[in-house]
Amino acid sequence: MGERIGFIGIGTMGTPMSKRLLAAGYPLVVYDVRPAAVVPLVELGAEAASSPADLAERCGKVITMLPNSSVVEEVVLGESGLVHGLKRGSVLIDMSSSAPDSTKRLAATLAGLGIEMIDAPVSGGVYGAEAGTLAIMVGGKEDVYRECLPILQTIGSSVFHIGGHGAGDTLKCINNMMFAVNMLGVCEGLVLGVKAGLDPAKIVEVVSRSSGRSFALDTKAVRQILARNYQPGFTTDLLYKDLEIATTLGRQSGVPMLAANLALQILSVARGRGMGALDNSAVVKLLEEAAGVTVMPQEA
Amino acid sequence: MGERIGFIGIGTMGTPMSKRLLAAGYPLVVYDVRPAAVVPLVELGAEAASSPADLAERCGKVITMLPNSSVVEEVVLGESGLVHGLKRGSVLIDMSSSAPDSTKRLAATLAGLGIEMIDAPVSGGVYGAEAGTLAIMVGGKEDVYRECLPILQTIGSSVFHIGGHGAGDTLKCINNMMFAVNMLGVCEGLVLGVKAGLDPAKIVEVVSRSSGRSFALDTKAVRQILARNYQPGFTTDLLYKDLEIATTLGRQSGVPMLAANLALQILSVARGRGMGALDNSAVVKLLEEAAGVTVMPQEA
Amino acid sequence: MGERIGFIGIGTMGTPMSKRLLAAGYPLVVYDVRPAAVVPLVELGAEAASSPADLAERCGKVITMLPNSSVVEEVVLGESGLVHGLKRGSVLIDMSSSAPDSTKRLAATLAGLGIEMIDAPVSGGVYGAEAGTLAIMVGGKEDVYRECLPILQTIGSSVFHIGGHGAGDTLKCINNMMFAVNMLGVCEGLVLGVKAGLDPAKIVEVVSRSSGRSFALDTKAVRQILARNYQPGFTTDLLYKDLEIATTLGRQSGVPMLAANLALQILSVARGRGMGALDNSAVVKLLEEAAGVTVMPQEA
Amino acid sequence: MGERIGFIGIGTMGTPMSKRLLAAGYPLVVYDVRPAAVVPLVELGAEAASSPADLAERCGKVITMLPNSSVVEEVVLGESGLVHGLKRGSVLIDMSSSAPDSTKRLAATLAGLGIEMIDAPVSGGVYGAEAGTLAIMVGGKEDVYRECLPILQTIGSSVFHIGGHGAGDTLKCINNMMFAVNMLGVCEGLVLGVKAGLDPAKIVEVVSRSSGRSFALDTKAVRQILARNYQPGFTTDLLYKDLEIATTLGRQSGVPMLAANLALQILSVARGRGMGALDNSAVVKLLEEAAGVTVMPQEA
Repeated sequence: MGERIGFIGIGTMGTPMSKRLLAAGYPLVVYDVRPAAVVPLVELGAEAASSPADLAERCGKVITMLPNSSVVEEVVLGESGLVHGLKRGSVLIDMSSSAPDSTKRLAATLAGLGIEMIDAPVSGGVYGAEAGTLAIMVGGKEDVYRECLPILQTIGSSVFHIGGHGAGDTLKCINNMMFAVNMLGVCEGLVLGVKAGLDPAKIVEVVSRSSGRSFALDTKAVRQILARNYQPGFTTDLLYKDLEIATTLGRQSGVPMLAANLALQILSVARGRGMGALDNSAVVKLLEEAAGVTVMPQEA
Repeated sequence: MGERIGFIGIGTMGTPMSKRLLAAGYPLVVYDVRPAAVVPLVELGAEAASSPADLAERCGKVITMLPNSSVVEEVVLGESGLVHGLKRGSVLIDMSSSAPDSTKRLAATLAGLGIEMIDAPVSGGVYGAEAGTLAIMVGGKEDVYRECLPILQTIGSSVFHIGGHGAGDTLKCINNMMFAVNMLGVCEGLVLGVKAGLDPAKIVEVVSRSSGRSFALDTKAVRQILARNYQPGFTTDLLYKDLEIATTLGRQSGVPMLAANLALQILSVARGRGMGALDNSAVVKLLEEAAGVTVMPQEA
Repeated sequence: MGERIGFIGIGTMGTPMSKRLLAAGYPLVVYDVRPAAVVPLVELGAEAASSPADLAERCGKVITMLPNSSVVEEVVLGESGLVHGLKRGSVLIDMSSSAPDSTKRLAATLAGLGIEMIDAPVSGGVYGAEAGTLAIMVGGKEDVYRECLPILQTIGSSVFHIGGHGAGDTLKCINNMMFAVNMLGVCEGLVLGVKAGLDPAKIVEVVSRSSGRSFALDTKAVRQILARNYQPGFTTDLLYKDLEIATTLGRQSGVPMLAANLALQILSVARGRGMGALDNSAVVKLLEEAAGVTVMPQEA
Repeated sequence: MGERIGFIGIGTMGTPMSKRLLAAGYPLVVYDVRPAAVVPLVELGAEAASSPADLAERCGKVITMLPNSSVVEEVVLGESGLVHGLKRGSVLIDMSSSAPDSTKRLAATLAGLGIEMIDAPVSGGVYGAEAGTLAIMVGGKEDVYRECLPILQTIGSSVFHIGGHGAGDTLKCINNMMFAVNMLGVCEGLVLGVKAGLDPAKIVEVVSRSSGRSFALDTKAVRQILARNYQPGFTTDLLYKDLEIATTLGRQSGVPMLAANLALQILSVARGRGMGALDNSAVVKLLEEAAGVTVMPQEA
């Protein structure tokens, strides 16, 4: 574990992820556009870098955990980007929820410079990041995947090699699209049930053991909707972005996606109504408002 | 267990359900519009009745497991219907997927005759019926629910008292609506993934442990879509009916249900294309056809 | 013109329609559940009736212009309904926007009593009613249609015989469904254009001469949206009702109607948000709110 | 009229448009990637150019009528593109249905080279191009618009200056989006009506004079659907492209567009089913197939 690892993007997810690497004994170099973000990690023993390029010069493997593909491209290819410091044979591990076509282009560009890349987006949210139980979906070459596996297993409990470059990103956006569609059904069902006089806690209890069950129902709806807690979790803005990637992929490849596009549009309404930074389950409020009810567990 | 129980509707679900009652030692009187349907049960010890009225005269509790509310109403109120045989104090247990407003009207009519009724629809399909692992969602009075509980526990493993008359039906259609919406997302995600070169078995493996997971994905998609098996299971026609009930309830109560109505329309296309009697997961074929791919696990 | 005509339902539409009959010299007997509603017509020479039955006894032809099929059925078949006064050979002209299946049942019931019926719903709104330029879509027998034609031509300028009982209602709901779908496209296009910096008056001017044109754009959008005037016109509630009839017909006959059902759901949101009594074009507010713009013509 | 005009893109639309310029006496230089396409114009007196650059050297104004923004960008900026021949002060008139953001970028690039540009997409199809009755929607500077107006008036009968660069493109995609949504309603209404026994010719006749009317109904449905003629007209592929532009603009600017996205998805199904090169009204076949009817006028 002598080799230092770079970590760029010390945000809600990046903070617990990088802490796990430190706790596992990996020497870590960290960078974030907001210098204050890295302070807690430096106090735990990480080194701070002054730029992606500076970080890249010190590390053989660099993890990025950034908001979207544009930011990743800028951090990698920009003026003081990673490419100005990464050596031949080093590896970029992009754990952001990136767009597959951007990842493929980036991997090709880096390959031309002798630099390897895998896409390794995660599922599981902040809880999963803190608990080390994230699912990680990897795209890229088999041998590079194997080389990075110990690092990834420090961050997540289920690591899957999905396919070539972009395959991890593709599966990530598919997963999140399914989640978003499931959440729509959950919201409609809860509001309908409450309007019909049912206890939403009872709905969740029963459907969780029946064919309508989903993570959106048995986990998200419980933690957020029934608890009237719209602190993210996973924001409407981020879920919208993943749906944009999925539906764009559908357009590019000729796959009709009626449900996914409906979900995208409803999230668009939610964002326009000021819910972008809330947990995505806040879309239930749109239905509550129209139906004139609130999804609240009935008193025991 | 001396009291005889009546069972009307010896079909795909009713057969294994009534067999479980027989196996548990309940004296059973059976009826079906197709006389041949009751033969196997008579061979196992059940009595055959010549009409619902005839059956009602011999039983204190009668279970109905029928295609829809119209048939239930006919069997109960029709010319040789149950009302012509049921005594005061007897109980109708309607386990069909009925419409809540029909159930409420029927319960009120029967109450006027001194007859009790509960709605007790099930979730879990033929597998669940055979294994006795159905979830049962009961609407009606608490004391009648308690009175019927031993019978219901012979048929299902999870029995829930949801609320007053129609509450079981309401929750049933909500559960199935959520399932249908989840299935749409599953189908779109699988076809998109396959079109992008992913192995659908890998998609299911990974998403089953991630936030996109659902019964529609981890159970139905595996048994039906990945196995290229569209033998029902749960037919498109029946799921359409449940969605009709749910969306009608939404109309009546002023709850916008965009996803549920989209699912209803897509199932309508599937029915029009001849898939009504296939498992509902066959809707994936509509997407496969448009996208020009087949969701088949890749060779190992 | 000696024969008296009955008119039941003296509301927004019924008032100008019945005035036209009076102006044309028809002896008129009027009735409304709100007695005050008939006062202006009595001042113009109409007789008031005390009930539908009372009215029916005095008239050979009776026009109904009522909110929906339930009210029509009550007015015809109820306790002091028309059937208690109508003579054999008399004709019921239902000009309400009724459901075709209700109309068919009612026509069959009346036929058994020797009473004829046509369905003759209208298109054109209050302006059309006042100007006598309504389009009238008639279902029923050819000879009864011909018998009623002079009366209908007094009320509308375009009278069409569409087919048998219910055919007028069917075409009416199809027309209004098309209108509702067109209006959705209009709203989305206007909000998109305004957000992109275009003058909505310019959008209407140009699209009115191009392939995107529709009555929803060139007439309704101009009178209501561009004028920021949501006084009905044609209320969201009434358009919702017509869409309910159309989409129910689609369900009953196995016709997938994705756009119509989407429109129904969006109108449902508008109703839930308190816009039911406003003009249906008020749905544009839902989009304006989400997009953060107002569709206002730019200053000259 | 001494100054020569260049015309690039001699296809279904470009051919009649360039013929009108020739007929009006404009000296014309033409280019198409398929050399055979320009032969009929050369026979009518046009000069052929060997590349866009070659054409540009001979002309002060150049019209492009190309399939999409990518092709326009290639023709303008590519290896032997227009920029290599256009002089300072010359004008590019892009009459393609381009994406507004591409147009804005291109206009900015050309402005840096002292070259003016307007976007001037058209509405009206091949009939309109042949008859000279196209509507033309212009984005760009007022003075450049005025300078090009005589040329545009030779091609179309209604020329509108909409706003700055990209405003023409924006309005074009809005118009076509409204058309596509209208067409969905038309198809659902016609199939529903036919299934209910109505004559589709009667539906069109009546709705054309009522509030449901639209160009999609009174013109397209008559020429294509009622005539069972799916020769384009305006192909499904091209309408899909315009909807892609409109819905992408909606995503970029935060305007929810549920109807437009639904239309896009349904066109996507139609393309996947092999209808991309047919007239867009062929989507009615999807509904006919599901409903089991054909929209054919009844015999007189």
